[in-house]
Amino acid sequence: MKTILVVNAGSSSVKFTLFFAADLHVAASGLVERIGLEGTRLVYRRPGQETIQRLVSIPDIGNAVELILPLLTDSQAGVIGSKEDIRAIGHRVVHGGEYISQPAMIDDRIKQIIRDCFDMAPLHNPQNLEGILACETGFPDIPQVAVFDTAFHATIPSKAYLYALPLRFCEEMKIRKYGFHGASHRYVSRKAAEWIGKPETDLRLITCHLGNGCSITAVSRGQSVDTSMGFTPLEGVPMGTRCGDIDPAILFYLMRQRGMNAEQLDILLNRESGLLGLAGTGSSDVRDLVQSMLTGHHQAETALRVFTYRIKKYIGAYLATLGGADAIVFTAGIGENSPLIREWICEGLTELGISIDPQLNQSVNGNLGEIQSAESRVLLLIVPTNEEAEIAIQTRELVTN
Amino acid sequence: MKTILVVNAGSSSVKFTLFFAADLHVAASGLVERIGLEGTRLVYRRPGQETIQRLVSIPDIGNAVELILPLLTDSQAGVIGSKEDIRAIGHRVVHGGEYISQPAMIDDRIKQIIRDCFDMAPLHNPQNLEGILACETGFPDIPQVAVFDTAFHATIPSKAYLYALPLRFCEEMKIRKYGFHGASHRYVSRKAAEWIGKPETDLRLITCHLGNGCSITAVSRGQSVDTSMGFTPLEGVPMGTRCGDIDPAILFYLMRQRGMNAEQLDILLNRESGLLGLAGTGSSDVRDLVQSMLTGHHQAETALRVFTYRIKKYIGAYLATLGGADAIVFTAGIGENSPLIREWICEGLTELGISIDPQLNQSVNGNLGEIQSAESRVLLLIVPTNEEAEIAIQTRELVTN
Repeated sequence: MKTILVVNAGSSSVKFTLFFAADLHVAASGLVERIGLEGTRLVYRRPGQETIQRLVSIPDIGNAVELILPLLTDSQAGVIGSKEDIRAIGHRVVHGGEYISQPAMIDDRIKQIIRDCFDMAPLHNPQNLEGILACETGFPDIPQVAVFDTAFHATIPSKAYLYALPLRFCEEMKIRKYGFHGASHRYVSRKAAEWIGKPETDLRLITCHLGNGCSITAVSRGQSVDTSMGFTPLEGVPMGTRCGDIDPAILFYLMRQRGMNAEQLDILLNRESGLLGLAGTGSSDVRDLVQSMLTGHHQAETALRVFTYRIKKYIGAYLATLGGADAIVFTAGIGENSPLIREWICEGLTELGISIDPQLNQSVNGNLGEIQSAESRVLLLIVPTNEEAEIAIQTRELVTN
Repeated sequence: MKTILVVNAGSSSVKFTLFFAADLHVAASGLVERIGLEGTRLVYRRPGQETIQRLVSIPDIGNAVELILPLLTDSQAGVIGSKEDIRAIGHRVVHGGEYISQPAMIDDRIKQIIRDCFDMAPLHNPQNLEGILACETGFPDIPQVAVFDTAFHATIPSKAYLYALPLRFCEEMKIRKYGFHGASHRYVSRKAAEWIGKPETDLRLITCHLGNGCSITAVSRGQSVDTSMGFTPLEGVPMGTRCGDIDPAILFYLMRQRGMNAEQLDILLNRESGLLGLAGTGSSDVRDLVQSMLTGHHQAETALRVFTYRIKKYIGAYLATLGGADAIVFTAGIGENSPLIREWICEGLTELGISIDPQLNQSVNGNLGEIQSAESRVLLLIVPTNEEAEIAIQTRELVTN
């Protein structure tokens, strides 16, 4: 039985999922986490079987990749006979820069493109490449495909991807909006079209990926035409620990008043801000904040109000971008599982054709389905995302063509 | 005949307008420009009379203010008998911080508030205060009123004025959205309500102040509920030389890659960006860029496309904020006088109830009036702004109560 292996090599973990190529059902999945730290751990799952966990001694991503094949082909725990059963390996790569709009067979040119984007994704691209190199060694002769987070956004037009900075300077420095979460926005757009029963080319969608990172995308006839994340994943709506949009002059102010440097600003805005910073309860998790709010923690409520208001504004902005929308899609951890957040986002938008049904919002929660009220002109959908499946789909498509 | 004197003391100029208190018609106006530079010049205008210009030797704002009274009471050029004919003086003050929501009689407390905001408006508040102090000396016993640019935005709720940064840190550093152009947004909101013939309290307006600086405000029932400028006038839509919204991570990137400091970033983003930076034609003026575009300059067109697209997105966002709008108001240099910009902003919004009439857009250009098409559910208005008149209105109101 042919399979597709999806590998996501991050800064301290390697995740993998093995899909049956025919129907894209999961054969097995797992991760090696805390790589290079104490307590490095392998977790391995197969549908309907007990999860296997064990401590391992793994200094780097390459060694983590070496663990995968013996596990998948193990006589007890394995799910395939040999590595020949793997048709292709799809790698998640965060940043593909300006020139990548499609998944790509990995060759020297693609590896150079991934390297060229190291500066713009310093916490992701080097690790992604390390995963690729390890797979090239461990799985020679098996086609390797790179699926880029930025690729789905390559269709964004210049009026939306350009910052109002000196143009030649931006070209030289490669500064523009790239957008992220591409596999997720791509996946839920396709799923939403299937659910609605129309071709993607007939639809205008606003896809809200609300997880620990959050991004909102305007999808016109199957193509991304704008997205809230920008040059990096910091821009856009506030997230767990990231500030999203702020007045850029706040940075000069902090540099002058507090003598802050790039490193300190980066930490403040990327790791200490967002819901964590606003709520001040020590948690960046929406579930915790909802609990805090229910027990009377006023700042937790304020944080959630800021969060949902800013998402609402992006939805309005993308209604203008698209000239109206057929559906708004909620996905990822918060988008799929928080009725309160979806309710607050949609509050007061009836005149714009957006109206949520409180019962459906509760009952469909966590599953694929519609949650708008009868009067809503715009469909409101929950669509569980699956970035690994999207990478498998794109990988399979590329190797079969 | 009682009058109201309005004074706007800036970094290198002092502008003044004398209004008849009864009907707020202009009695005289003028400015002293290039203060402290070579070629300091006084310009003085009276309705229906020749403009008087002369070179003067003026080292500072105080000396400039000293010129005003002799001119206004001059036996030839004057328009009033003595300073007793001035009922009150209204001063434009840019930044009032968090606690100012109204015009205020100037006393020690108000002067301290203006001083407390020096750090947040270093190019405006010190000069504004210098103008006030000079008027207190030159016009003792005449009531002095401060009208703050930020005051109209004091009604913005916390979900809109908070940045998703650590809350206590922001409180300590006074970092929040303040908003600017308050006198203009206030003035055109009132004028729009008069034109429409409904009380402001029945209306939801989106006011687009598009001049050299640009800001867009959501006005709900007479109150500002959100605005595009933020902690400083850098945030929001792109402007003549200011970048508006960008990914804040671009700043760390430039600090790391180019070693840029606060001063260099400030200059890049505030003075070399916006339409000037994007178009690269050497001009930040929309009229020049339209000309360049018409003669085939592709980048000029791109700059105007980015500019109008970003304004369109703010209009969409504020439709969501307000839950729908009764009217969109275009004002200030570009907003009042550029049919092309208004047309591009409104393009493709018919489904959202916004549709411009191409003929009216041309014929009403520059004047108060409606420019929407018959099918438009939202009124589209051009309303010439008058910040000095607004300051006079608020000053008169305060001293007569």
